Amino acid sequence: MDEKKGKLTVVGIGPGAMDKLTFEAYRAMEECDVIAGYHVYVDLVRDSFPDKKIVSTAMRREEERCVQALEEAAAGRNVAFICSGDAGVYGLAGLIFEVAQDYPGVEIEVIPGVTAALSGAACLGAPLIHDFALISLSDLMTPWETIEKRLRMAAAGDFAIVLYNPSSHRRKEHLQKACEILLEILPENRVCGTVRNIGREGEETRIYTLGELRNVHVDMFTTVFIGNASTKRIGDKMVTPRGYARERGAGFGEQ
Amino acid sequence: MDEKKGKLTVVGIGPGAMDKLTFEAYRAMEECDVIAGYHVYVDLVRDSFPDKKIVSTAMRREEERCVQALEEAAAGRNVAFICSGDAGVYGLAGLIFEVAQDYPGVEIEVIPGVTAALSGAACLGAPLIHDFALISLSDLMTPWETIEKRLRMAAAGDFAIVLYNPSSHRRKEHLQKACEILLEILPENRVCGTVRNIGREGEETRIYTLGELRNVHVDMFTTVFIGNASTKRIGDKMVTPRGYARERGAGFGEQ
Repeated sequence: MDEKKGKLTVVGIGPGAMDKLTFEAYRAMEECDVIAGYHVYVDLVRDSFPDKKIVSTAMRREEERCVQALEEAAAGRNVAFICSGDAGVYGLAGLIFEVAQDYPGVEIEVIPGVTAALSGAACLGAPLIHDFALISLSDLMTPWETIEKRLRMAAAGDFAIVLYNPSSHRRKEHLQKACEILLEILPENRVCGTVRNIGREGEETRIYTLGELRNVHVDMFTTVFIGNASTKRIGDKMVTPRGYARERGAGFGEQ
Repeated sequence: MDEKKGKLTVVGIGPGAMDKLTFEAYRAMEECDVIAGYHVYVDLVRDSFPDKKIVSTAMRREEERCVQALEEAAAGRNVAFICSGDAGVYGLAGLIFEVAQDYPGVEIEVIPGVTAALSGAACLGAPLIHDFALISLSDLMTPWETIEKRLRMAAAGDFAIVLYNPSSHRRKEHLQKACEILLEILPENRVCGTVRNIGREGEETRIYTLGELRNVHVDMFTTVFIGNASTKRIGDKMVTPRGYARERGAGFGEQ
């Protein structure tokens, strides 16, 4: 007879501050037996749930992290597997489903969270609003040529663009290279913004032109926003209108 | 002497269910004097905050809605101006900053929420994971030619794609037209998914190929996901790997 297996809930915890969690994300952690994930994220929440078993792993051990969490669930425990931001955006929700093929009977649920594109946009004002594209500048698992192509296509399509992983210890010049590619298509005066330490101490926003951004050095805690052709600076905010109609009262279905 | 002006907080309330709110979104409504917004969204939350003044407006009165909310704040009241999903994604955060130029002294804050791209992705499994583009198929404020161009660029860049407003009362054939454009570049067997009534009663997910999706009729409560070249179907889930490396253990910075 089969033992009852546990449930694995993949939880996006947002940018880090507890008040940017959703109620269902909190409840998943409150109701689980085990909190699992990358140790930096686990450390953000463990004090709020002192009675939980903690299973944390170091950086770059993503598959091992998924296996450990699924082993816990297969042994009958309910697991909250946490990721920063949203687990479905540069997070581990996908890898969990891949690895979970080896763990039949473990139920998987994904609880969405506020990814840096949204939390960073709120800090800057309203830089996205309309169609936009997310692009990671990390070439660890994506060839740089693919990243370049996406930058060009996003610029050619007049998308607002959010850049994740604009810098790393090993590759400090990625943002500069990305700006140079974008400047093949976009003008120097395109409105851009950066947000550092979203939702954490030392949160900081800056507005630039794309020409200026090319010479800015950012760290790995920074998210970068490139406006579309309509994006403007209003005071210290970066604001994109909802469409191309000039009259403000023209109407547009919200979603 | 100036009277003290109120604060206007633009609040993304997520897909509708109260447990998909963030704690800070809830607190903004709890602490305000006035809850303002489109009547459908106001109705979702008013029972939870029975002592608040309510200022709600009909559809397509977006600028009037912003003016009313800003008038309340200018009169010294703290206002929670609510949008579904995230106010910075096809919402009114941008218009608030534009209209607020006529209301100096009113402080504006934006609180992010879970937009349909994220909440819908969680229902489908993990269809985004890596770089993706959001495109609205509404041509109320964007020329259809611009929408077509963005569809082509997103397909050419191998972005996963999320389609907002895939259908409306007046334009039922937009999704079909979009699929035909995408099929100029993408194969018939590209994995796609739809989510209807995200986070609400009757929530429903479906997985299709792009060839099948062309012949599917969806309503305005549906969000559509088009996979990238790596997206696969795993059981009843739509899953995109994190990159192009085949080995699962290759590592990738999370964000």
